[in-house]
Parts: sequence; structure tokens; C-alpha cells
Amino acid sequence: MFTPPLSEIRFTLEHVVGLERLREVSAPDWLAPELLDAVFEGAGRLAQEVLAPLQRVGDREGCRLENGVVTTPAGWRDAYALFVEGGWNGLPFSEEIGGQGLPWTVATAVQELWHGANTAFGLCPLLTQGAVELLYHHADPDLQRRYLPKLVSGEWTGTMNLTEPQAGSDLGAIRTRAWRDGETWRVQGQKLFITFGEHDLTDNIVHLVLARTPNAPAGTRGLSLFLVPKILPGADGRPGPRNDLRCVSLEEKLGIHASPTCLMAYGDAGGATGYLVGRECGGIEAMFTMMNNARLGVGVQGVGIAERAAQMASAYAATRVQGRELGGSSSQPAAIIKHPDVRRMLLTIRLRAEAMRALALSAALGLDLARREAEPRAREQAQLRVDLLTPVVKAWCTDGAVETASMALQVHGGMGYIEETGIAQLYRDARITPIYEGTNGIQANDLVFRKLGRDGGAAARDFIGSLRTTAAELAAAGDQSSLGARLADSISALEGATGWILEALGRDLREAAAVAAPYLTLFGTVAGGALLGRGALQAAKLAERESADKSFLQARIAAAQSYGALLLPEAGALAAAIRGGAGRTVLDHPESALLPQ
Amino acid sequence: MFTPPLSEIRFTLEHVVGLERLREVSAPDWLAPELLDAVFEGAGRLAQEVLAPLQRVGDREGCRLENGVVTTPAGWRDAYALFVEGGWNGLPFSEEIGGQGLPWTVATAVQELWHGANTAFGLCPLLTQGAVELLYHHADPDLQRRYLPKLVSGEWTGTMNLTEPQAGSDLGAIRTRAWRDGETWRVQGQKLFITFGEHDLTDNIVHLVLARTPNAPAGTRGLSLFLVPKILPGADGRPGPRNDLRCVSLEEKLGIHASPTCLMAYGDAGGATGYLVGRECGGIEAMFTMMNNARLGVGVQGVGIAERAAQMASAYAATRVQGRELGGSSSQPAAIIKHPDVRRMLLTIRLRAEAMRALALSAALGLDLARREAEPRAREQAQLRVDLLTPVVKAWCTDGAVETASMALQVHGGMGYIEETGIAQLYRDARITPIYEGTNGIQANDLVFRKLGRDGGAAARDFIGSLRTTAAELAAAGDQSSLGARLADSISALEGATGWILEALGRDLREAAAVAAPYLTLFGTVAGGALLGRGALQAAKLAERESADKSFLQARIAAAQSYGALLLPEAGALAAAIRGGAGRTVLDHPESALLPQ
Repeated sequence: MFTPPLSEIRFTLEHVVGLERLREVSAPDWLAPELLDAVFEGAGRLAQEVLAPLQRVGDREGCRLENGVVTTPAGWRDAYALFVEGGWNGLPFSEEIGGQGLPWTVATAVQELWHGANTAFGLCPLLTQGAVELLYHHADPDLQRRYLPKLVSGEWTGTMNLTEPQAGSDLGAIRTRAWRDGETWRVQGQKLFITFGEHDLTDNIVHLVLARTPNAPAGTRGLSLFLVPKILPGADGRPGPRNDLRCVSLEEKLGIHASPTCLMAYGDAGGATGYLVGRECGGIEAMFTMMNNARLGVGVQGVGIAERAAQMASAYAATRVQGRELGGSSSQPAAIIKHPDVRRMLLTIRLRAEAMRALALSAALGLDLARREAEPRAREQAQLRVDLLTPVVKAWCTDGAVETASMALQVHGGMGYIEETGIAQLYRDARITPIYEGTNGIQANDLVFRKLGRDGGAAARDFIGSLRTTAAELAAAGDQSSLGARLADSISALEGATGWILEALGRDLREAAAVAAPYLTLFGTVAGGALLGRGALQAAKLAERESADKSFLQARIAAAQSYGALLLPEAGALAAAIRGGAGRTVLDHPESALLPQ
Repeated sequence: MFTPPLSEIRFTLEHVVGLERLREVSAPDWLAPELLDAVFEGAGRLAQEVLAPLQRVGDREGCRLENGVVTTPAGWRDAYALFVEGGWNGLPFSEEIGGQGLPWTVATAVQELWHGANTAFGLCPLLTQGAVELLYHHADPDLQRRYLPKLVSGEWTGTMNLTEPQAGSDLGAIRTRAWRDGETWRVQGQKLFITFGEHDLTDNIVHLVLARTPNAPAGTRGLSLFLVPKILPGADGRPGPRNDLRCVSLEEKLGIHASPTCLMAYGDAGGATGYLVGRECGGIEAMFTMMNNARLGVGVQGVGIAERAAQMASAYAATRVQGRELGGSSSQPAAIIKHPDVRRMLLTIRLRAEAMRALALSAALGLDLARREAEPRAREQAQLRVDLLTPVVKAWCTDGAVETASMALQVHGGMGYIEETGIAQLYRDARITPIYEGTNGIQANDLVFRKLGRDGGAAARDFIGSLRTTAAELAAAGDQSSLGARLADSISALEGATGWILEALGRDLREAAAVAAPYLTLFGTVAGGALLGRGALQAAKLAERESADKSFLQARIAAAQSYGALLLPEAGALAAAIRGGAGRTVLDHPESALLPQ
């Protein structure tokens, strides 16, 4: 089933990401290792004992829509109730609104467990959390008072309503309308692909809906954001009547069957009651708070899927007996983990999962430092770092989820293609992650145009400089010097490609856009390697202690070195393609050869 | 829907693969271009008008098993009848057994159309064809007389029965028993994952079953092959009684739902009647005739899937309007094909499909030359070429099928995850191809241990030499010299890696096995690029003619150049990983870090 990777997570937090910095800037008791242990162990139990066993039934039963009511699979209501009861939904939110006040770094690490145990389940709190962030930063105090506590506790869930049939990646094409009606607003329109838009887990659902007000300008600048609750507040503060909104249909999807993907109709009976969040025409800015949060969250979902892929592949390979060990002396059949090609796949999955985790949690630390560093300049730097890393985490970790799930399926051989083993479900579930919350193509454009373009690559250079430091330390560390050299080469490749991209931005935006995706992959590959390298340096130091778990620490060192040998060479190829004119090639290839014949 | 890529196929056959050589050695009328045109156009019509429309219903309905009877989806029986009626099943078989006597090169190109139109459908004749090959080469004349004509016509279908629960990649573990019973044999045992093991398309099914005879040695050397028909021959040659065999259950699979994957039970009532094919204990050799044929066939299935992926992605991207063109002057929304990252994906899929086709058809030509070259030495050389390329075609083209289907799904954005669009089905269907007929890991081992190891790399050097010739011609061709240089670099990378592998084979087989898969990918990547380069050289010559379709030929030249810029850089990374110690790394990584925790 699913074993929460608590040792790996704790090592990553303490020794790769550096939770110590957070203790230095905020020195709170709640970052005491014992308390963190309790948090992770509690979360691990819930993930392992409650959520993981529901993953298969979630896939098989899926959700049903009857008479406007969406029924989740057997056992899901109870599991969600336990989730709320444990206070897990409020982990990263401040105590003043009912949260647990833990840092995002820790909450993000905990989220990985939900996704690893049960991807479709983890999606619901992922969105609720985004809704809390949005309301916390943009809603007026009255709206916050009425909606935040229940969303923080998880008694109510939140949704993001952006997409319409003609408006997917292009939000400027949104047509849903909103108009003033006394103290409140009316909202009318259809929204597509609304995750957990309707369900039976909670009594109320808080929809955050992008819509266009009368006389608003065209494009995204004319969008406003509305809070549209499923159940309206009654006069006495108790649940009132149902709002004018409904789930029209559920999508039949490739995977995440237990996550209802709804076509939502607002205002069929004249207009759903909505409350403006933030200022009129300030909707896209507010929604970006939610989207940025959700993008990191989806990246972490990728980490959870890769971890699960590693576990499933490893469990199968350790028990499936087939063939004899190559070059071995035994004539007995061997477990397939003994076969070099199977081992290569297991190792690749494992390395990818660990590097992705390190990157995602590094970005999450930035979220906390951006709020807690004492110096404004340090806060700003931390925010720039998160901004830079968010598209990389989202895209690199979700591409990685698909690749590792596919490789884990391959390890299963013929059994992998049979739904019974569950690995086929992981492969299907994983495939949504590079698409939603902004396709990975959109993330690559975000990285190149906004995150590199806005400051001439300053934040990227700063980050790459931190990778250089790790490479230099490895180079100086004697027995890790070969990894140091490999890392230095790959960092040079990343620097060269970054310089090329910055030049292209001044020459022809399209040329940069055409290689934005390989550039993002290069960025993630090198950053992931450097972070594992940092872990290896720390592990080598820790291993000198008497009480050290030497086998565990040795595995951290081996992971960095194996990553250098197996995965870092890709960096050179990506940089060579980018600098060798792949972008121009994409643009110059005759369009007629790509059009339908 | 599906447009048969007839121009691309014909160009590949005539100008990349070089059908001319086949005309030289056999000079038959049936290789006249007009006749080939008629064959391809007829096949294209069947694929487009009959098979492609059944792909979705095949997925939705799947196959049903009731009371031992497997019912295929609506419309499939009629489609199969048309397929048989058109004589398509017998395309590559000699006229003396009722075939059409066309070369394998042509028949293989036609097969791509079945797979592109309807992957699950194409699988049935793929296996029948393997059965014909096997019986043609190994069965005695009486058995041939009774079974070949109906299998050649397709009135009966064939199956391969290798796998048992404990015997997947390791055929030596097979336990199914066979014993002599008068003139015939009795067979008893269960076989797993039997494709089209039971169905309603034909009156009879001819099972080819590996089993162990009494006192046979352990391992694969003790296996014999039996023909076990579903319906036994009656006294008068007409259909007799049912044999003692049945389909116990159908697997619930990730994809290819219309292809029934059966658990077969032989001999529950005492022993199924079987006929020995070839000599006792010669089963594995005979089965390899079928497997090698089917491996090329599965590689071609990968080509068909990639072609379909290219078409579906292109059709969606040309019509889906979203966002504005980057750097464009128009304020109107644009089709997403105008977005550079989408174009990069479309181009990558297209290039991969064309390179895979070129490689698969090159291998197929070897099949024909191995039979038709006048000189024994030339025949032998051609056979060595096919042997070398078979694992590369199987694995590289099926990995490519998964990658291109996934990328095509990504082009569809959110709609790609909805089953309605059909691209999710392609993604599910594609995923079996790297698994069956020998996993791609098995193919990589075959390439490295058998195909390189058996002749010290002679056949590989010969093949790589032919790639060098193309690179040199490109380098000398003025405006194609940059591709020539790129290709020369990648060929050097392949040569270096080949040398490394050959050394490793003398040092530690496991080290070679640990990088066999990346080596195979390197091999396919470079070979595919060189073949497109050969096409570009020919296209440049043809374009000088007055009547030339210059736009089509220009696209062939652009394909080679774009492949060089986008896909060839990967060769350097793969070679660097192989030569930089990735194999040793895989072996030395602590096993405890890969075992379940």
C-alpha cells in the first residue's frame, strides 16, 4: 500500500531545504523537532490508514450525479470527516482564523502525504486552501469573518471557477457576467472543469468565480472575482436557502474519478447571489493568489505521485520472481529487482521523486521567509525566489509524475496493464497534473516571460548562484568532487541557456517561447541535482556523528551521486538544443507540414 | 478522424528505405508503382472508412465473456469480414498458400494503416500473421495443408500462448504439460494474457502453445510447440467437435478494450488435442519465428499510434482558438497551432512518427532482401540487419508511441483529459506496446547481448557505417551541411557508446545490461535521424524535377533538419551517461535504498 516517507521528508526539510533558517527568523516553539514529528506521524497515519485504502474504490466507483446531487465513493465522506476532525485542513493558516499556524514549508510537506496516499482526495483540500489564501489576502473583513473559519476548518470546501468552453488558458475570453443587485451581486454563466464543484463531503461549498461586470474593459483587466456560496447565509447566521447554481454534468475523465469535475451553471433562475472579493476589475490579481498557491500544490501532488510510483514499483520488483540473476552464481529464480534494467528504472523513479520533493519544499520555504524574514529586502528576495520557482515546481514535478508513473507501470510488465494492480490508475491519475492549474506550456511561458523577463534574470542568477555554491562545496569535498564537477557542468549549461533566453527575449519573443518548455526542464533538472547534492554534503557531515543512521545517510549521498550520473547528462542535451537553434527551427518549420492533411 | 498518410509512406518506401533494391533483386511486376498505389489506396479506404470509425466503440463497449463466448463490440464482426474479403490478411504470404505474394516491406507499411486507424483491431491480424510465419517455417506439410490456407485468408485467426502466471519474461518457467496420445498430443495448463484467445470474429481459432513434454529438460530447451485448434477437424475435413480448451476470464485492462485478453485453460477435461509443430523440444526456436515477426509488428503498431497522435494533435491545434498570437499584429484570437510551445509539441510528434516509420520500414526491407538477394552472403547480411534492428524497432517505436500520445494529449489541454475527445484512449491504448511481445527492457538486452554480443558488434558497425555515408553526403550537400555535421556528431556518440558496450560485455554483463535501454534509445534516435537525412537528400534531388511537388519535398527536407535541431542533441546526453558510468552507478547504488521501506 502506501508508506509515508517520513524520514526522507524530515531529512529534506532539515538538511536540504534548511528549516533552521525559519527557526532563526521566527524562533517559534512549534518548529521543535518533537512537535514536527508528532505532526508528521499523525498525518502519516491518516494517509496510510484512511486515505490510501480509499484510492482504488475512488477510481472504481467514481462520483455520481443524480438530481443535482453528487455522491462521492463509499467511505469518502467518513474519511473527509476524519480529515476535518484532525484539524489537517487548517495546518498552514494563522491561529486568528482558526488555523494551526504551522509554516507553509511543513504544511506543504504534509500535503505530499495526502497526494501520495490518494491523489483525487488530496485535490479537494488543495483547492480549499487556495480559497482561504485568496480570501485572506483580498476579501473584506466581513466576508472573511463569515467564510474563513469554516473554510479553514474544512467544514466547507472551496472551488476555483475560471474556465469556460471558450476560455481555458485565455482567461480574457471569459463571458460569465455579474451585475450589482442592492448590497450583493448577481452572477450568471457556465463554468467548465470545476473540481469538486459539487459533492456530499460538506454542507456548503464556496465558489470563487471570475466574471465580467457591466462596462468592464475587455480581456483579463475586466474580470472581477465573486464569492458565490452554494448555501446562502440565513438571517440568523444559520444556513439559509440554496443559491441559484447547480452542477449540470460531470466529466468522464481518464483518471481522478473520485474527484468530481463539474460543469457548473450559475444564475439559470435569474442570477446567483455573489459577493465581490477585492475591488471591481481586480479579479485576476486576486485569483492569481489562489492560482499561485494551487500551482505549488499541484507540483506537490506530482511529488506525492512520484513517491507512490517509487513505492509501488519497488514493492512489485522486490516480490515478483522472474528469471535468474545475470552473472549470479545461483540457479534459483530471482526477484526482478536483481535485474539491472529493472534496477535502473527503480533508481530513476526514486531519484526523480527525491529531487522533486527537494525542489518543491525549497519553494515552500520561500513562502514562509517572504512573510517572516525581519528585513524587508530579505522578504522581497524570498518572494522573488518563490515566484521564480513556482512554475518550475508545477511543471517539472508534474512532468515527473507522469514519467515516473509510466516507468513504474513498465516495471510491472504485463500486470501493469491490468487495472487490478493499481499502477494503471496512478498512470491515469497522474496525467491531469501537467494540464490543470495552467498547462505546463503556460508555466514555461510564465518562467521565461514573467520570471526571467521582469528583472532581466536577476532572481534566476541569484538562485543559480546558490546552486554554484553547492557545486563548489562538493568539488572541495574530496570524495564528492566528481559530483561537484558534474554539477558545475550542468550549472554552466543552465547559465548558458539562461543567457540565450534573455537575449532571445530582446530579439523575438516567439523564439524564447518555442524553447521555454525545454528550458524549464533544464532548470528543474539542474536545480534538483544541486539540492540532492546539498543533502549529500549534509549527510556526509551528519554521518560523522556517533548516533547517526549511517545506512540512511549513505543513501542520501548515493542519491546525489547517482542523480549526477543518470539524470544530469540530460542538462547538456537540453542546453545544446536551446542554444543550437531549436526555437528558430520550431518557428521556421513549414506550417503546412503541421496542419491536418 | 484518420487520414491514411499515403504520400509519406510512399516517399519513405521509395526514397528512404529504397524499394528499388527489391525491384533489382526480384524485378517483379507487382512492385510497379501503379500496383502499389492501388494497394495503398484500397488499404487506406478500409482503414479510414471502416476501421477508424470503430475505434471509439471498441473502447467503450470492450469485449464481453458470457458462457465461454467472447463477444466483440458492435460492428467488429462486419469489419473483420470486410478485411478478410479484401484479401488483406494474406498480403505478405506466398501465393502457393493463398497469399498475395507482396513483399514484407509493403505489407508492413500497410499494417501501419490498420494500427493508426484502430490499434485494437490491428492486433488480431498481427498475431495471425505471426502464426502463419511460424507454421510456414516449422510445421510439417500435412499440418500446413490443413491450417495455413485458412490462416492466410484470415478465415481463422492465430494466437501466441507463452505467458503463465509464473512465466512472463522468463519462458523457462513454463509449466503447461503435453504428452503423446496416439497420433496426436494432449495439452494441459493455463495460459495468461492471450490476445484474441477467444472471440466471435471467426469460426475457428488456432492456438500455438508452448508446453513441456515428459522428461524434457528444464528451462526453455525443454519446451515444445503445439498447434491446438479451438475446433477440431472432423473426419471429412469439415469442422468437428470443440477442443478441450476455454477462455476462463477476460482481463480488465488500461486500454485496447476491444482486444480480448484471455486467461485460457487447456485440458480441463483431460487434455486438449494438440499437434506438434517442428521437433520435440524445438518449441522456443519455432516460437521465436513468431515473436520476431510480432516484434516488428508491434513496432509498426507504435508507428501507427504516433501517426494518429500527430493527426489528432494537429486537428485539435488547428481548430481550437485560444489566446492571441505572440508578437502578432492581430488582436483576434488565434488557433493554438500559432503558439510556439504548441508548435514545438506538434513538430516533435510529427518528427518522431516519421523517423519511426523510416526505421520500421528499413527493417522490413531487410526481411525481403534476406529472402530475395541473389548472393547467399547478401541474404545473410540482410538477415543480420533485420536481427539487429528488430529490438530497436520494437522498443524505440513503442516508447515513441507512448511519448507522442502523451504529448498529443497535452496539446488538447483540459479536453485531453476527457474521454470524449478520444486522445485519452490513444494514450491508454499506446501504453501496452512497450510491454507486450517482450518488454522494452527485454528488447534492450536482446540488442546488447545477442545482436551486439554475438558478432562483436560487426552488424552494428556495418549499419552505423551506412548512417555515416548519409552524414557524409549531407555534409557535402551545401545547404544541408549543418545537418550533416549534427548527424556526424550523433553517429560518433553512437559509435563511442557501442564501443563502450562491447568492452563492458567483456568485463561485466550486468554493467552493459544496466545501460542497455538508454543505448537502445540512442541507437533509435541516431538511426531515425540518419534515415530522415537520407530522405532529405533524395527530396532535394527530386525537387529539381519540373513536375515535383515542391511543398511536399520541402517538408521532407525540413523534417530532417528540424529533427537534427530538436531531437538529435539527446544522443549526446545518452552517450555521455552510458560512457560516464551510469551502468556502474545503477549496480552500485545501495539496494536497501530501492527496497520497500
